[in-house]
Amino acid sequence: MQIIRVQTPSAKYDVYAGAGLIDSLRPRIERIAGRLPGRVFVVTSPPIWALWGEPFVASFAEPPVALFLAPGEKHKTMACVEKLARQMARAGADRGSLLIAFGGGIVGDVGGFLAAVFMRGIPYIQAPTTFLAQVDSSVGGKTGVNLPEGKNLVGSFHHPLAVFADTTVLGTLPDRELRAGLMESIKAGIIRDRGLVQYMEKRAPKILARDAKTLEKVIAASIRVKAAVVSRDEREGGLRMILNFGHTLGHAIEQATHYEELLHGEAVGWGMIAALRLAQKRGTITRGQAERLEKLIHLYGPLPALKVRAAKAVAAAGGDKKNIGGVRRFVVPLGIGNAGVIEDVTQAELEDAARYMLSQARGS
Amino acid sequence: MQIIRVQTPSAKYDVYAGAGLIDSLRPRIERIAGRLPGRVFVVTSPPIWALWGEPFVASFAEPPVALFLAPGEKHKTMACVEKLARQMARAGADRGSLLIAFGGGIVGDVGGFLAAVFMRGIPYIQAPTTFLAQVDSSVGGKTGVNLPEGKNLVGSFHHPLAVFADTTVLGTLPDRELRAGLMESIKAGIIRDRGLVQYMEKRAPKILARDAKTLEKVIAASIRVKAAVVSRDEREGGLRMILNFGHTLGHAIEQATHYEELLHGEAVGWGMIAALRLAQKRGTITRGQAERLEKLIHLYGPLPALKVRAAKAVAAAGGDKKNIGGVRRFVVPLGIGNAGVIEDVTQAELEDAARYMLSQARGS
Repeated sequence: MQIIRVQTPSAKYDVYAGAGLIDSLRPRIERIAGRLPGRVFVVTSPPIWALWGEPFVASFAEPPVALFLAPGEKHKTMACVEKLARQMARAGADRGSLLIAFGGGIVGDVGGFLAAVFMRGIPYIQAPTTFLAQVDSSVGGKTGVNLPEGKNLVGSFHHPLAVFADTTVLGTLPDRELRAGLMESIKAGIIRDRGLVQYMEKRAPKILARDAKTLEKVIAASIRVKAAVVSRDEREGGLRMILNFGHTLGHAIEQATHYEELLHGEAVGWGMIAALRLAQKRGTITRGQAERLEKLIHLYGPLPALKVRAAKAVAAAGGDKKNIGGVRRFVVPLGIGNAGVIEDVTQAELEDAARYMLSQARGS
Repeated sequence: MQIIRVQTPSAKYDVYAGAGLIDSLRPRIERIAGRLPGRVFVVTSPPIWALWGEPFVASFAEPPVALFLAPGEKHKTMACVEKLARQMARAGADRGSLLIAFGGGIVGDVGGFLAAVFMRGIPYIQAPTTFLAQVDSSVGGKTGVNLPEGKNLVGSFHHPLAVFADTTVLGTLPDRELRAGLMESIKAGIIRDRGLVQYMEKRAPKILARDAKTLEKVIAASIRVKAAVVSRDEREGGLRMILNFGHTLGHAIEQATHYEELLHGEAVGWGMIAALRLAQKRGTITRGQAERLEKLIHLYGPLPALKVRAAKAVAAAGGDKKNIGGVRRFVVPLGIGNAGVIEDVTQAELEDAARYMLSQARGS
């Protein structure tokens, strides 16, 4: 097990990464919180609960009250948060209750937001069950839901008491989700950890075979990058923006494909390929570095083929909510293991990056 | 005009109390925020906008985008927050936008919560238009909405950039609402400002006639009490609890009357009368002090008559959400101008207080 500390102006907590964490949650929570809170609630999805509910409750004398969120982005809504809050109120939850979000990124975002607003905020714990949620969304305190007008338009910053990234539960994760999640680890390596890039280059077979120790290393290294960035910039004033590498264009691809054809990580994979092209043309990385990183991305593919529509969206990108005041800001690697922000990206540059991405995306 | 500073670990802002503030909002906001934010939105109620919309927009070159919340507690919901958030998203609001909550307590609570969660938090300003909202709910950062299971069960702590308590807009406030709001000023005096108690004893005619300078003094003194308490205890760890004087029993009365027969301040008025009886029996105030304070409450009445049901609710009180772990905690005055918390109030004490209250409440 590895422990990674997150320390921001408003919170200080640990992320635990390793095998067999969820079967011993109660003593772990007692150690962190001083004592077990009066009532414990768990927000989870029915499939996860069917697979892992039994080991999850095993360590509790009184099993936590389970609240269910049906799978799928379409349940990441205010209405679902309200429904869950009402269930908690009826079950007697109070300010001293604890919530555990046990599931993928959507469960984490919705459960975290529920904890942020129930009685104006109760403590919660993230127990992410997908690779993507473990290395990305469970760390950093961002919670929220979608509006029909856009994703994550409503939410809160609310840090968990702790994050338990249990590699054991990854055993039942579909292969495609694992590969998509690994794109975020590649991103972490590119922007801040050259060693992680090298490790992922060498250990692809073991990682994809889900060897516990190898996975733990990749997960811990990825979390360490996120924790370091979030600790230095809690609210996206500056540094936190580098976490968006590949995401501005990735979001454009997701929107153009109505969030249906690609997993988030896959869209980020394509977004990184386009962004690497842009970076190479700007000279922030060499051609050799761009090729090397591109090869790494494909090593953890296959990324699904893209249609022209997606490339057009990339060419048109620039209305992303990270762009305050309309300036087109993009995150680019500065060599391998470092990143920065370039401004005023031109339409021609975007079109070139989109064309380049599409030339690969059709054939893949 | 008087300026009261609120300073908590997470925020620092000023409350402005005086006449003619809303006609000069733009320069005031520019001074506070450095510059006028890119987009300004105002959440308000149709009746308030009809009465005061014109002076409100007068100082803006480009009028703020008005979003409407229908009057009444039944609109203090997650669904209304979502509707408003969607309107903002469609109107192009971003993280650099500013929201102004311009209305009574419900507009302030809903508008504040909207600002707390829109894009995970945007800056906002409170411009309360009722006496109650000016002296109480607009200060302290509590925002939120109701669930069918209970009031204010969902919300956030989110402090405004500033509060503008404009005495001019009180000109159109119904008399009953003014009197009910003044109960919170009496509360403020009892728990922390002996001078305010004396002032309100002497100046009742001028206050009730809404003399601008006299009202400003009462409002500023009341806010000063709340600001001092909130500044020392942002999240209700201890001291902030004294603000609940009269409220534990007041809430019981409101619940028993389904929030229909009494205004909040009126229920607090009766709650204070019951709590004063309890305090006198415990010896934290003398009989003479209890009578004097009771007289002051009635001076700003009439409080509507109560039915037996309400007294029964007071006798049964103890499930209030401020009671963590089931201990019956009550705030009582310690003399006049100071307050403390007593624990383990007995059933007999509650019944005595309820009987006493009812003996007055039937005849009033």
